[in-house]
Amino acid sequence: MASQQPRIRKIGPLSPDEAKWTELRKIEWTDQTGRERIWEAAARKTRKSTGIDAVAIAPIIRHPSRPLSTMIILQYRPPVEAICVEFPAGLIDEGETPEQAAVRELKEETGYEGKVRDVSCTLANQPGLTNANHQVVDCSPTIVADPGLTNANMQMVTVEVELKEGDEPPEQHLDEGEHIERVVVPLNELYDKLQALSKEDGKIVDARLYHWSLGLHWSQKLKLQS
Amino acid sequence: MASQQPRIRKIGPLSPDEAKWTELRKIEWTDQTGRERIWEAAARKTRKSTGIDAVAIAPIIRHPSRPLSTMIILQYRPPVEAICVEFPAGLIDEGETPEQAAVRELKEETGYEGKVRDVSCTLANQPGLTNANHQVVDCSPTIVADPGLTNANMQMVTVEVELKEGDEPPEQHLDEGEHIERVVVPLNELYDKLQALSKEDGKIVDARLYHWSLGLHWSQKLKLQS
Repeated sequence: MASQQPRIRKIGPLSPDEAKWTELRKIEWTDQTGRERIWEAAARKTRKSTGIDAVAIAPIIRHPSRPLSTMIILQYRPPVEAICVEFPAGLIDEGETPEQAAVRELKEETGYEGKVRDVSCTLANQPGLTNANHQVVDCSPTIVADPGLTNANMQMVTVEVELKEGDEPPEQHLDEGEHIERVVVPLNELYDKLQALSKEDGKIVDARLYHWSLGLHWSQKLKLQS
Repeated sequence: MASQQPRIRKIGPLSPDEAKWTELRKIEWTDQTGRERIWEAAARKTRKSTGIDAVAIAPIIRHPSRPLSTMIILQYRPPVEAICVEFPAGLIDEGETPEQAAVRELKEETGYEGKVRDVSCTLANQPGLTNANHQVVDCSPTIVADPGLTNANMQMVTVEVELKEGDEPPEQHLDEGEHIERVVVPLNELYDKLQALSKEDGKIVDARLYHWSLGLHWSQKLKLQS
């Protein structure tokens, strides 16, 4: 499908009148010493009634004869003018729980479906809801992407995918206009793979994925045991 | 010092004329299929000639009789209207390398200084520069905080701090207006600690710190070995 490299034609200022998805906010606050201060922040205009902007998915892929792996995706991200290496993720639609969004996005972006596990996952704003019938094995509390600059928040969902010998990679179900490459990476090779991808022209790694890989890396390097 | 809870008085729109630190950008780009598209993004106006906005520090604290630990900080973040739990971090000043900023910020925010190690760490925009005389044990490539929304980027520096029996917690050297609480957490307890902090009123965890803890957690849970 992808027949050419994406390219930026022009970057200019965006007036508040023209902005459909984003806005700047002036926050007037009083600090710990009683001093009145101003903070500037950016926000999405798209947050739905769940109160959560986005969900990201860390897939754990089990296969009978291959090492434990995860799946990362590569997609062009105009704000950073590069192909970004990241976990599958997406914005939460109105009426969706973060967990439903995670399952939907994983299937759309990677084609993969998860393994059913009976764990409970309390979701923000839906404290009574658990995922007894879904394939989620871990669900984060609400976390914030860049709290010095924006109010952007998300939940991080870990999903197990169980493959059988001979399973073919499933088809993606991308939205129109989405161009996403998926890469399966053994967990033991993820840290080195992200270093290598970072050295390729026009590619950059997402900080959250990088931190996850750094956690794996240091846990092994320091020989942590639970 | 802190005599009251920080509080938000008012949040309103910020006009481009008034904005000193942030801006919205309209990105006109051509996608993989040749279609002309628009993307809205936010950016800091403060990026210096290094090309990197910020640096974050993952401290690894060694002590003769205590478990391997890290240090996290709690500080009020107006954009998320909450006390954010995060790694020490800060913006890079003009003329600083990310590594110099890391060492400075760690000392300012936590009082701790690191252990000298002879490793090489190639820094963005300074490919010839290594950290032979610093206490950094790992330095990330440039990574991006939230590439669907902003151009914000950073480098992640892992610093080892070696304590001796009886060492007292050092004094912080905070900038005026900074109010930062530091908490030493054993690496094996970090994931649970972040879950517990997330449940406290008015606190929220940074996504990058959370992903790092999730990497530690899954590495142990899946019994990964290098």
